[in-house]
Amino acid sequence: MKLRHVVLFGFGKAHSSAAIAEVIRRFAELKALVPGIDDFEWGENSSPEGLDHGHSHVFLLTFANARARDAYLVHPDHAAFANWIQPFVSAVTVLDYWVESEAPVVSGDASSSSVP
Amino acid sequence: MKLRHVVLFGFGKAHSSAAIAEVIRRFAELKALVPGIDDFEWGENSSPEGLDHGHSHVFLLTFANARARDAYLVHPDHAAFANWIQPFVSAVTVLDYWVESEAPVVSGDASSSSVP
Repeated sequence: MKLRHVVLFGFGKAHSSAAIAEVIRRFAELKALVPGIDDFEWGENSSPEGLDHGHSHVFLLTFANARARDAYLVHPDHAAFANWIQPFVSAVTVLDYWVESEAPVVSGDASSSSVP
Repeated sequence: MKLRHVVLFGFGKAHSSAAIAEVIRRFAELKALVPGIDDFEWGENSSPEGLDHGHSHVFLLTFANARARDAYLVHPDHAAFANWIQPFVSAVTVLDYWVESEAPVVSGDASSSSVP
């Protein structure tokens, strides 16, 4: 199983691209500083749909289990990063999920076209 | 290069777990209906951080290029799905990003600890 940790950031308009790059650099650096981050990727929003709600960057971390995620959350280097970015981020959304590839089994007649 | 399409949904409290499962089933079904979706995964939020802002589910689609993503967005089956879910979703956030693994190069002295 894979546990994904999705982080969306928005930055205040006052912040330079160099400042944003430094936030990304420090976030990426956590992969080397904190044990248990199996994968780290990021990217700048390019959706044409206009549903970003003020977020401009995505960070996707992958953990093998909840223990690794929990250890990351309280790790001193993560805590220092989370504290350091406060003045720069105008929007922060975080969701974690266990990766599922198949849809859940829909019981009863919920799969009929009249439901929900 | 990989183009990720991140979709966060929140559902109104009135909706049953069967209704939510049906939304997931129809979303997952798009992988078979719409060409160009290289990967599809989803999961229910389990973050303990309380930063989900009303979203409870994550869907992560991967495309090989922007053309595939653009074709997906206007595909009739996607349009029908997007229209059908309107009564059920209370929050929708969407960001797309090209997957980057390395931090951007920070020019000048922006990487010093005094910046930003």
